[in-house]
Amino acid sequence: MLRILGLDPGLRHTGWGIIEKDGSKMRFISAGVINPDDRLALADRLAELHEGLKKIIHDFMPDEVAVEETFVNKNPNSTLKLGQARGVVILTPALFHLHVAEYTPNQIKKMIVGAGHADKNQVDMMVRTLLKTVPEHIPPDASDALAIALCHGFMRPATLMQGGR
Amino acid sequence: MLRILGLDPGLRHTGWGIIEKDGSKMRFISAGVINPDDRLALADRLAELHEGLKKIIHDFMPDEVAVEETFVNKNPNSTLKLGQARGVVILTPALFHLHVAEYTPNQIKKMIVGAGHADKNQVDMMVRTLLKTVPEHIPPDASDALAIALCHGFMRPATLMQGGR
Repeated sequence: MLRILGLDPGLRHTGWGIIEKDGSKMRFISAGVINPDDRLALADRLAELHEGLKKIIHDFMPDEVAVEETFVNKNPNSTLKLGQARGVVILTPALFHLHVAEYTPNQIKKMIVGAGHADKNQVDMMVRTLLKTVPEHIPPDASDALAIALCHGFMRPATLMQGGR
Repeated sequence: MLRILGLDPGLRHTGWGIIEKDGSKMRFISAGVINPDDRLALADRLAELHEGLKKIIHDFMPDEVAVEETFVNKNPNSTLKLGQARGVVILTPALFHLHVAEYTPNQIKKMIVGAGHADKNQVDMMVRTLLKTVPEHIPPDASDALAIALCHGFMRPATLMQGGR
């Protein structure tokens, strides 16, 4: 049995989702969004993001972590902000000595829906079909994070053969 | 007496410089560069950066921290990488409850050389003139970090009036 934490990084909203993989079966455990207070200074927003992630890792004790390899935005300022959040999102599990895998949005869509250019609704529907017990009203970023966790669950043997941390 | 840590963030090289401000006098304490091993996975490079910064904060116990507000690169992938390093560089002192101030490259140049469009050599020369005991062969990123620390030393009363963290 393997617990996977999926993470969809963002400075305003970082989605997280925990699933459990038992052989080829995958089970929903929990999901949510970390929303650092955007009235705070950048340093404090990043600290809130870090503390939020630490709490999730403490509470759910995942074995492995998967993060979306962020789509590069055309606006350099948004890219920089996303990069800052992503730095914290990748660092935090590494400080717990957890392996952090990265997947591109296309890899995730292809793995979940079967097509690299699936839209958000299709991905969300497949996440619910694959995991069955996902609550109806979870935010979109949480559903994206579950998709990332599922992608890692499917890809894992291949990923490990390539050698991890 | 106030100890200031200046930081020039980068994934390959993060420059750091410590100065002490005593009234209007500023004194060189130490400077260097953190070079995370670029053969490692991103998560481990960010962890090395974080650990390196933690060690500097432990060793030199700065009171305040100043970081360069990064110049936005035209290459989105470089901007994302820089953002990831910058996220870790801003987070780490915040976890020690240190105030993190940010300055643009133009603010720093204007404060040190008196002109917003000064070149690197002019900044380095002024850093040596202002601090006197800077060793001859410190790397350019370390000298940049000292310039950031000096800028904060000069700007500090104004910065505090604007309200910090």
